[in-house]
Amino acid sequence: MENKIIYMDNASTTRVLDEVIEAMLPYWKDRFYNPSSVYEMSQQVRVDVENARKKIAMLINANPCEIFFTSCGTESDNWAIKGTANMLKNKGRHIITSTIEHHAVLNSMKALEREGFEITYVNVDSDGFVKLDELKKSIRKDTILISIMTANNEIGTIQPIAKIGEIAHENNVLFHTDAVQGFSHIPIDVKSMGIDMLSVSAHKFNGPKGVGFLYLKKGIRITNFMDGGAQENLKRAGTENVAEIIGMAKAAEIAHEKMKERSEKEIIVRNHLIDRILKEIPHTRLNGGRDNRLPNNVNIGIEYIEGESMLLNLDMLGICASSGSACTSGSLDPSHVLLAIGLPHEKAHGSLRLTIDDTITIQDADYVVDNLKEIVEKLRSMSPLWEDYVRNKK
Amino acid sequence: MENKIIYMDNASTTRVLDEVIEAMLPYWKDRFYNPSSVYEMSQQVRVDVENARKKIAMLINANPCEIFFTSCGTESDNWAIKGTANMLKNKGRHIITSTIEHHAVLNSMKALEREGFEITYVNVDSDGFVKLDELKKSIRKDTILISIMTANNEIGTIQPIAKIGEIAHENNVLFHTDAVQGFSHIPIDVKSMGIDMLSVSAHKFNGPKGVGFLYLKKGIRITNFMDGGAQENLKRAGTENVAEIIGMAKAAEIAHEKMKERSEKEIIVRNHLIDRILKEIPHTRLNGGRDNRLPNNVNIGIEYIEGESMLLNLDMLGICASSGSACTSGSLDPSHVLLAIGLPHEKAHGSLRLTIDDTITIQDADYVVDNLKEIVEKLRSMSPLWEDYVRNKK
Repeated sequence: MENKIIYMDNASTTRVLDEVIEAMLPYWKDRFYNPSSVYEMSQQVRVDVENARKKIAMLINANPCEIFFTSCGTESDNWAIKGTANMLKNKGRHIITSTIEHHAVLNSMKALEREGFEITYVNVDSDGFVKLDELKKSIRKDTILISIMTANNEIGTIQPIAKIGEIAHENNVLFHTDAVQGFSHIPIDVKSMGIDMLSVSAHKFNGPKGVGFLYLKKGIRITNFMDGGAQENLKRAGTENVAEIIGMAKAAEIAHEKMKERSEKEIIVRNHLIDRILKEIPHTRLNGGRDNRLPNNVNIGIEYIEGESMLLNLDMLGICASSGSACTSGSLDPSHVLLAIGLPHEKAHGSLRLTIDDTITIQDADYVVDNLKEIVEKLRSMSPLWEDYVRNKK
Repeated sequence: MENKIIYMDNASTTRVLDEVIEAMLPYWKDRFYNPSSVYEMSQQVRVDVENARKKIAMLINANPCEIFFTSCGTESDNWAIKGTANMLKNKGRHIITSTIEHHAVLNSMKALEREGFEITYVNVDSDGFVKLDELKKSIRKDTILISIMTANNEIGTIQPIAKIGEIAHENNVLFHTDAVQGFSHIPIDVKSMGIDMLSVSAHKFNGPKGVGFLYLKKGIRITNFMDGGAQENLKRAGTENVAEIIGMAKAAEIAHEKMKERSEKEIIVRNHLIDRILKEIPHTRLNGGRDNRLPNNVNIGIEYIEGESMLLNLDMLGICASSGSACTSGSLDPSHVLLAIGLPHEKAHGSLRLTIDDTITIQDADYVVDNLKEIVEKLRSMSPLWEDYVRNKK
């Protein structure tokens, strides 16, 4: 196993597929043209961009005119939330979200709070599922938007999106979902799920970083986020990131073709990882439920160790893992998601997130667990908390 | 010349250099990691991103901590303008810009007008230079920002940025410049030019589309535009577009190394184009002055023809040209820049923008002019306006 990298951080970002790179390359070379120019060479590029839009629309049962290309999931979230707030501020200034959203949503909400909007953060249960009763009760006359993520980036819980869509529309409230972790992992149908706006980022499904899209249901008007040129039907200015748009469509297509097969493979390895860790390493627990969980997500709470040291030890063996979101790494705060599912501060610090893909084998998983066992043992043997625990038990 | 494409629309977008593509490729493959993750492979990518930041900072005499990566020039403009407005709205709500800015600036200003800000649009002279006296007089006690572009995208005029910086700072007003067309074509020194904020887009200098940066002078606080994760020193959320950031730095480096040599070459061909057209095609005029003009920009007003037909005819010969900004093509309105320099509506419609690079030879230029002459003659022979003109002259 010397020198092999075992990458188990696919929720953070993914390797770009060779087919995707191949699809992008012409658009920096012979097809580098600006799709908004008038000459033939540009018009061909325009056609390619529109075909990418059609491909993506089809995958979520949308109309191509409902897909707007953006620079990332974060932009899509900012646009959907701030654009809705700005458009509807005279109708109402109350928005509902959950306590376990990505920071792109939470910090957009915080920005709106500073502008006088009122945000309700609906709680989740101990498995990380949004409490639907609480959601229903929190809807007011001045509620203009519900934003609940499709699947959680840390603990992999898949929310009951269709039900939430139903609740939103029964109450005449718009529904946005951050599907950055869900798209391409689980089937999404914006129509049957009652989704008005949906955010996606390409680099989470073997596409390039720097491109994403917002699905915006036809007829729904939100204000622009990026003002400028006439691109994206006058709704999102800036020269189209052509190559990466083409790459995103290709990656999305491949991901959807293989979704069923890939998920089945991932679930076997995921469950193997969970089962072995819970069985063979004492004082561990699964964060997030077993059901309605992303096929590739493992998140384990490991007591009496320091998370950073564990990651460092895994890294020395070539195992790439994380304790939670990469977007907040560097921060010493415990995960807001783990706090939200009820973990006390000290336990929220010792979590291990392994997000696999279909290249990870059972052998890889075993290698990780075998080493994790040793690392945890070693770290505990040096931990004053563990010493206390053992002493108290005696 | 059969089948050869002569690309004279480099102000719209540019071909990505092979060296730039080579520099980007590893970051979709072996170095695809998220720079915010904790493991070694990610930390190496982090180092590469920070080196790209250093390279870019050096080129404009900035500190690396003053460079913030964005998705494009439009985002940089939106952030600088809206971020300043939002941060300083309690200090004042008056902003000064010019009548010939790019729509990324103008439409950001319009968005602020809808929120109660007052915008003064300073006029330009007949060559397209901002009237400095008018600028000075328009400054008020509640003026918080001056935003004037470095060089114009349509007529290539280079504004007296250092003087504008001086005026801004004498009056304690922040100064932003959209340098999307200027950067890499003319030397920029943010310190000696008194620039507080500067917007750049990579695809204008043989880098990829979908990446840019904002220079934000140390100590100046503006509100975030993209809220979310902790990236870019907590100021611009979203996973870094690593490959394209690396590509942008590479393209910027090459452009700056070759700037002098390239400009000299371009100016010779540019002047040849201007001289031959003005001399050999009657009823033409140069839009924008000869001095302080981008080395690669030609913009000619051609009377008694319809601009679209001219472009179409050039296109059939493999000549890629434009009538103005690609960002607004599709719009039937005449160019706001040409109106601002005093052209009447009918003349503002018949303009031809040729933006060359250093691969364009004198032979290419001659080929274009030779054909342009024939095209203009043909179109005029079919034009009722030309018929009127000839009849009246008799």
